[in-house]
Amino acid sequence: MTATDAHARTTDAALRARAAAVIPGGMYGHQSAAGLPAAFPQFMARGAGARVWDVDGREYVDLMCSYGPVILGHHHPKVEAAAEAQRQEADCQNAPSPRMVELAEALTATVAHADWAMFAKNGTDATTLALMIARAATGRRKILAARGSYHGSAPWCTPRPGGVTPEDRANMGYFTYNDLASAQQAAGAAAGDLAGVIVTPFRHDIGQDQELADPEFARGLRALCDRTGAALILDDVRCGFRLHLGSSWEPLGVAPDLSAWSKAIANGYALAAVLGGEAFRHAATKVFTTGSFWFSAVSMAAGLATLAALDEEGAVATMTARGLALRDGLAEQAARYELAIRQTGPPQMPWLRFVGDRDYTLANTFAGEAARRGAFLHPRHNWFVSAATTQADLDMVLDATGHAFAAVRRQVDGL
Amino acid sequence: MTATDAHARTTDAALRARAAAVIPGGMYGHQSAAGLPAAFPQFMARGAGARVWDVDGREYVDLMCSYGPVILGHHHPKVEAAAEAQRQEADCQNAPSPRMVELAEALTATVAHADWAMFAKNGTDATTLALMIARAATGRRKILAARGSYHGSAPWCTPRPGGVTPEDRANMGYFTYNDLASAQQAAGAAAGDLAGVIVTPFRHDIGQDQELADPEFARGLRALCDRTGAALILDDVRCGFRLHLGSSWEPLGVAPDLSAWSKAIANGYALAAVLGGEAFRHAATKVFTTGSFWFSAVSMAAGLATLAALDEEGAVATMTARGLALRDGLAEQAARYELAIRQTGPPQMPWLRFVGDRDYTLANTFAGEAARRGAFLHPRHNWFVSAATTQADLDMVLDATGHAFAAVRRQVDGL
Repeated sequence: MTATDAHARTTDAALRARAAAVIPGGMYGHQSAAGLPAAFPQFMARGAGARVWDVDGREYVDLMCSYGPVILGHHHPKVEAAAEAQRQEADCQNAPSPRMVELAEALTATVAHADWAMFAKNGTDATTLALMIARAATGRRKILAARGSYHGSAPWCTPRPGGVTPEDRANMGYFTYNDLASAQQAAGAAAGDLAGVIVTPFRHDIGQDQELADPEFARGLRALCDRTGAALILDDVRCGFRLHLGSSWEPLGVAPDLSAWSKAIANGYALAAVLGGEAFRHAATKVFTTGSFWFSAVSMAAGLATLAALDEEGAVATMTARGLALRDGLAEQAARYELAIRQTGPPQMPWLRFVGDRDYTLANTFAGEAARRGAFLHPRHNWFVSAATTQADLDMVLDATGHAFAAVRRQVDGL
Repeated sequence: MTATDAHARTTDAALRARAAAVIPGGMYGHQSAAGLPAAFPQFMARGAGARVWDVDGREYVDLMCSYGPVILGHHHPKVEAAAEAQRQEADCQNAPSPRMVELAEALTATVAHADWAMFAKNGTDATTLALMIARAATGRRKILAARGSYHGSAPWCTPRPGGVTPEDRANMGYFTYNDLASAQQAAGAAAGDLAGVIVTPFRHDIGQDQELADPEFARGLRALCDRTGAALILDDVRCGFRLHLGSSWEPLGVAPDLSAWSKAIANGYALAAVLGGEAFRHAATKVFTTGSFWFSAVSMAAGLATLAALDEEGAVATMTARGLALRDGLAEQAARYELAIRQTGPPQMPWLRFVGDRDYTLANTFAGEAARRGAFLHPRHNWFVSAATTQADLDMVLDATGHAFAAVRRQVDGL
């Protein structure tokens, strides 16, 4: 942390010191600021619309959306009103509330391939349950996934080896995203024992250029699953409702058998879902899965309000438009500073990389300076544009990124 | 469902029919009413203190406490006020709120063996993370658990085989609860590769007499882990804060290395925690585990208020006293109807079984009639007494169970 950062970060620094005593490593998981530039806060205070404030009162335009959950903006009035009304009645009870049925109806009416829904709390719950249903349906064991794709942090999928045994992944096979031949080869290796293929709607591996799904790849996986009797599982946890309300591969015309959802489906309230087609309904009844809070009503009320608002507000179109405007602005700025960048991913979930910046030195300078100037974006993880983003928010972002590109230019010139 | 039940259950029956269309099997997990007597509702509407109401307006005294989470009673004013105040500020953000540090401090100050805390959403998250930390700490693979103990619904522990592969459990070994020799034998079979032993504070397997931990068994597991360098993991998900605020084996003087918590730690708000001792802090930093909502502030604010209220209100003593009064009342009623019962478990988490009732016929009659008369208790799962239970609540329960014992008496006589 620079002296300036430290000076302005009294509360954050004090909290970090206290956290170091009672939380291993001071923080863990995707919200640890340990790997971020010093300008980033470790602790946040509040949010409203597309703006967030850290514990020292600094304001940012939010381009991370809590790493995905906040799709309509923070404190969306209709979502909060629905959640608060439900909280007055009940949340965690001896049995679910009517909200569960209403939400299952709303999701199956919205998502083209879905005939039924099951709910949980984490994205990892949803991906893991989808695997279990695929295995229960087929009586087989092997699951294929793209090498490097993030599907959660259970032992079968967490991206780091600590605490993981070889047996946890004994039934996993791997292919390369957008390389259908590699998936066919992996399916061949699992011949006769292939239960399913799990895949993200596009390639959003951390620190890499994002890569949209090749429609031929998506259709090829569908055909592979049809031919082998395996389940095609779309992991829509990160992208769900940002690309298309009918599921992220609906624009490609590819219907999965099962899909995993979480993050944005209740605008920040803790909720996950597995959706599936008729052919997998019976298998879903064979898996015993549950959680103490999986039937809680408040997050489901929030989910219902989120779904309604996404539709009413034309949220996908708004996120797309704002994301395209951001992309254009960033391209113009990078050109002005004669910096070679690559902007990848759909406009609603953008990311930029400096060409040749292999150790993220320039990315850290960029993100750090952007944070100092009031734009909260990430040097290695894809960003998220919420539907609450206004032109004023975009102007503030581009003012910040203008300074950030200038800082990168100075760094490049100084090398 | 009897005609009377059906008549009184218009809303519940309609919701069940709708659920059957969009939820596999109509419902899943521990909150499915499919295995319960017809008198039980599938859908609940609201709760206050120790009373809950189903969607058709029927009132019950709650002896299930949402299967554990509700420890201070529904809608506890201080917990709700803390949660609502936090919701006005922020819940799910780009980084945790100060509540996370405060809660880690409060838990490590309360729980004797804990030097640090990590948070998640499900009990299964906490037990799974504890296993991963034990493996990261030891570099070994094998985990021992008591046969039949419930530790969650991930593939390594879910009680039913659907969707589970042999490899998911390749590193599990099993012993018999309260049988130290069987644990020593299982440890011998894992020799050189034993990472940990996970155990519940007492035996609360579904449909079985509950069995308190033999102190020699608990001390023997501690010695076994000390001798082999394995982690002793206390699964306090179900019992946590009902037996002792310092952790459920504190009264036995047995300190685990790691403990898993969830259910009651935020009085119904979705939260889980792993607590651990200094020796396992470094290993905890080696496991990559996270979730979209694991850093959310509202459930942590609720957890802080819950911990404070548990202490201020002397909740453990209240639950114990009410549980003992319930036990005495049930014993007196059973004797009056000349029915042989066994009441087992700690008074805060009671259960009763009719002697010789192997297929739960009498248990179903008892629980069904109790539900009809306004006492919500379970025929096979242990019950939970909340600290909100009043003498008036107990009177209503005993009025209901009096009728329930009479119904069992009539059934026995009719056989």
